[in-house]
Amino acid sequence: MRNADVYVYRTPVWVRSYASCVGKKENEGPLGGRFDVFTEDDRFGQETWEQAERQMVLTSLGRAVEKAHLDKGDVGCVLGGDLLNQCVSTSFAVRELGSRFFGLYGACSTMAESLVLGAALIDAGLEDTALCTASSHFCTAERQYRFPLEYGGQRPPTAQWTATASGTVLLSREKTGRVAVTKGLCGRIFDPGVTDGANMGAAMAQAAFESLRAYFGSTGERPSDFDLIVTGDLASVGRELVLELAKDDGLPLGSNYTDCGLLLYDRDRQDVHAGGSGCGCSAAVLCGYLLPELEKGTFRKVLFAGTGALLSPLTTNQGESIPGICHVVCLEVM
Amino acid sequence: MRNADVYVYRTPVWVRSYASCVGKKENEGPLGGRFDVFTEDDRFGQETWEQAERQMVLTSLGRAVEKAHLDKGDVGCVLGGDLLNQCVSTSFAVRELGSRFFGLYGACSTMAESLVLGAALIDAGLEDTALCTASSHFCTAERQYRFPLEYGGQRPPTAQWTATASGTVLLSREKTGRVAVTKGLCGRIFDPGVTDGANMGAAMAQAAFESLRAYFGSTGERPSDFDLIVTGDLASVGRELVLELAKDDGLPLGSNYTDCGLLLYDRDRQDVHAGGSGCGCSAAVLCGYLLPELEKGTFRKVLFAGTGALLSPLTTNQGESIPGICHVVCLEVM
Repeated sequence: MRNADVYVYRTPVWVRSYASCVGKKENEGPLGGRFDVFTEDDRFGQETWEQAERQMVLTSLGRAVEKAHLDKGDVGCVLGGDLLNQCVSTSFAVRELGSRFFGLYGACSTMAESLVLGAALIDAGLEDTALCTASSHFCTAERQYRFPLEYGGQRPPTAQWTATASGTVLLSREKTGRVAVTKGLCGRIFDPGVTDGANMGAAMAQAAFESLRAYFGSTGERPSDFDLIVTGDLASVGRELVLELAKDDGLPLGSNYTDCGLLLYDRDRQDVHAGGSGCGCSAAVLCGYLLPELEKGTFRKVLFAGTGALLSPLTTNQGESIPGICHVVCLEVM
Repeated sequence: MRNADVYVYRTPVWVRSYASCVGKKENEGPLGGRFDVFTEDDRFGQETWEQAERQMVLTSLGRAVEKAHLDKGDVGCVLGGDLLNQCVSTSFAVRELGSRFFGLYGACSTMAESLVLGAALIDAGLEDTALCTASSHFCTAERQYRFPLEYGGQRPPTAQWTATASGTVLLSREKTGRVAVTKGLCGRIFDPGVTDGANMGAAMAQAAFESLRAYFGSTGERPSDFDLIVTGDLASVGRELVLELAKDDGLPLGSNYTDCGLLLYDRDRQDVHAGGSGCGCSAAVLCGYLLPELEKGTFRKVLFAGTGALLSPLTTNQGESIPGICHVVCLEVM
C-alpha cells in the first residue's frame, strides 16, 4: 500500500544476499577490505575500460547469486543500470547471466531505484527473487562525461570522483536473513538551477532534501528513529546543503546523517575533491558496509537515499541546468 | 502472480487515457490523422532538436493527463524513457510535470517495459495511477547514433527510420474505460551476433521470438487467440526473421502478426528503408492506433511486444554485437 508518497510493502522484502566488486582506489579507502572482490587492475583483465566495467558488473551479479546458493537460472529478474550511454555495462553483463531484465536509468540513484522497484515486484507476488544492481567505472565515465583520461583535465574542488564499483542485492520473498526492505519512496525531480557539471552535489541536494522530507512527512517517522541516514552521492558540498535546507525547514537531521560519497574515500589521503560519486559508489557502500553492519546488528534501521543528477554532457553543453532526483529505501533488521 | 515467465495481474489494470504526439513525416503515414497532436515543424517551436523532443514528450504526457480529467498533481508516478544519452528527454519533461519518476532504459522496448512495470505497481496496490511513456526524435537520434544531419549519410536497405513520436498511457486501478492490461512479460536478452548497427531488426528478431514463445508457452494461449500480435520495432527485415524462427519452432504466427515499424510508415511512398524504429514508434502506434481500435471494439485482444536493441554507438564502434530484448504486454477489452 502507499502512505502519501511512501510505498509500504505488505510484508518485509528480505535481503537474501549481496555482493560488491570495486577497483584499486576504492579498496584503498576507509572501507577497504570490506568488499567481496577488488582488483589491483582497474581493467579487470579486459582490453577496454567498457569491457572492464561489464566484467565488474558480472562479477558482482554472479557473486550475489553464488552467496545466495542459487543457480543463475533460478534468479527472477534483474533490475539495474549504470552511467554509460544506453546503460550498456549492465545490459551486456546481464546478457551473460540470461535473466529477465528491466533496464533502469536513475544516474547515481539507480541502486535505490532498483531496490524500490524490485521490492515492489516481490510485494506484488510477481517475482520470488530480484537482483538489484548498479555500477560505474571512473575510466569509462570520465571519458564519456568529461575528457579523455590522457588529457589530465583539472578538476575544481566541488567535483566528485566517479567510483569504480558495482553492487548487487538479491531481494527475496522468502525470509533467509534478518535484513529487510520495508518501505520505499520514488522521488520527484527538483532542479535548483545549477549549470555547473562539476558541482553535482549542489544540483542534487534539493532533491535529496525533498525526498527525505516527503519520507518523514508521509511515515511520521523521525530522523532520530534511524541509526544512519545515508544519501548517495552528494559528497561534501551536497551534504552541507542538505543540512542547511533541513535546518531551515526544521527537519532535525543530526550526526546520524552522512553520505556514501564521504564514506567510500578518505578525502585527506585520496585525491577525490568533494568525495565519491557514480552509481557504483552508493551501491558498493550499501553492499560493502551498510548491509553487513545491519546483518551484524551494528545498525537496526538505515535510510538509504540514492541521489541522481539527470544530466547528459549534451544538456550541460547546451547550457541547461541539472535536474536531480532521490529515491529512498528503508532497511531494517527484523 | 507469476505463471512461469508471465506476470498475471490479479485484477485488470485499466487504460484510463492515452495520448500521442508526432512529427510531420509520421502524420503523413498510413496512421495520419489518428494522433492527438502533430506538427508541421519537427522543432516543435524550440531552438534545439533536444528541446523539441522534450516538448513533444511533455505534450503527450500533458495530453494524457488532460484526457483523464486529472490535474498533473494527481498523477501517481511516471515510468518512461527515451533514446538520448542519460534519457534526458524524458527526465527534463517530467521535471516540468512534477510527478514522482522512475527512469527506464529499454531502447525501443521502453513503452512495453513501462507498461509491465506500471501495471505491476498498480497491481501491488502501490500506485493508483501510473503514466507510462516513451519517445524518440529522428533528428536527435540520428546525430547521436549515426551522423550529423547535414552530412546526409547514405543508409543501407536494412536501416530503419527513427520515428519522431511520443506516446503516453495512463494506467489506473479504477475502471474508467474498457481496455485493460491483463498480463506482462519481462524479456531476457538474446544476441544472435549481429554487429551491423544499420540492421537492428535482425539483431532484435531472436529476442522477439523468444519472448513470444515464452508468453505462449507460459500462458497456454495461442497466437490465434489474438486479433493482433504486434512487435515494435523490427520493421521488414526483423519481422521476416521472426516468422522464420516461429515456423522452424512450430509456433503458428499468422497474418495477425505485424510490426509497429511497418504500420507507422508507407514504405512505398515514404523513404524509410526497412521501416520505422525508435522508442516513439511503438509508443505512437499503440496510442494512435492499437488502443483506439481496442476501445472501438475492432480488436478485442492485442499482444504488444516491444523490442529493443541494447547497443550504444560505442559498443558498435568497438566491434561488439547487438543484444536484443523484448517485453510483452497483453491488452484486452473487458
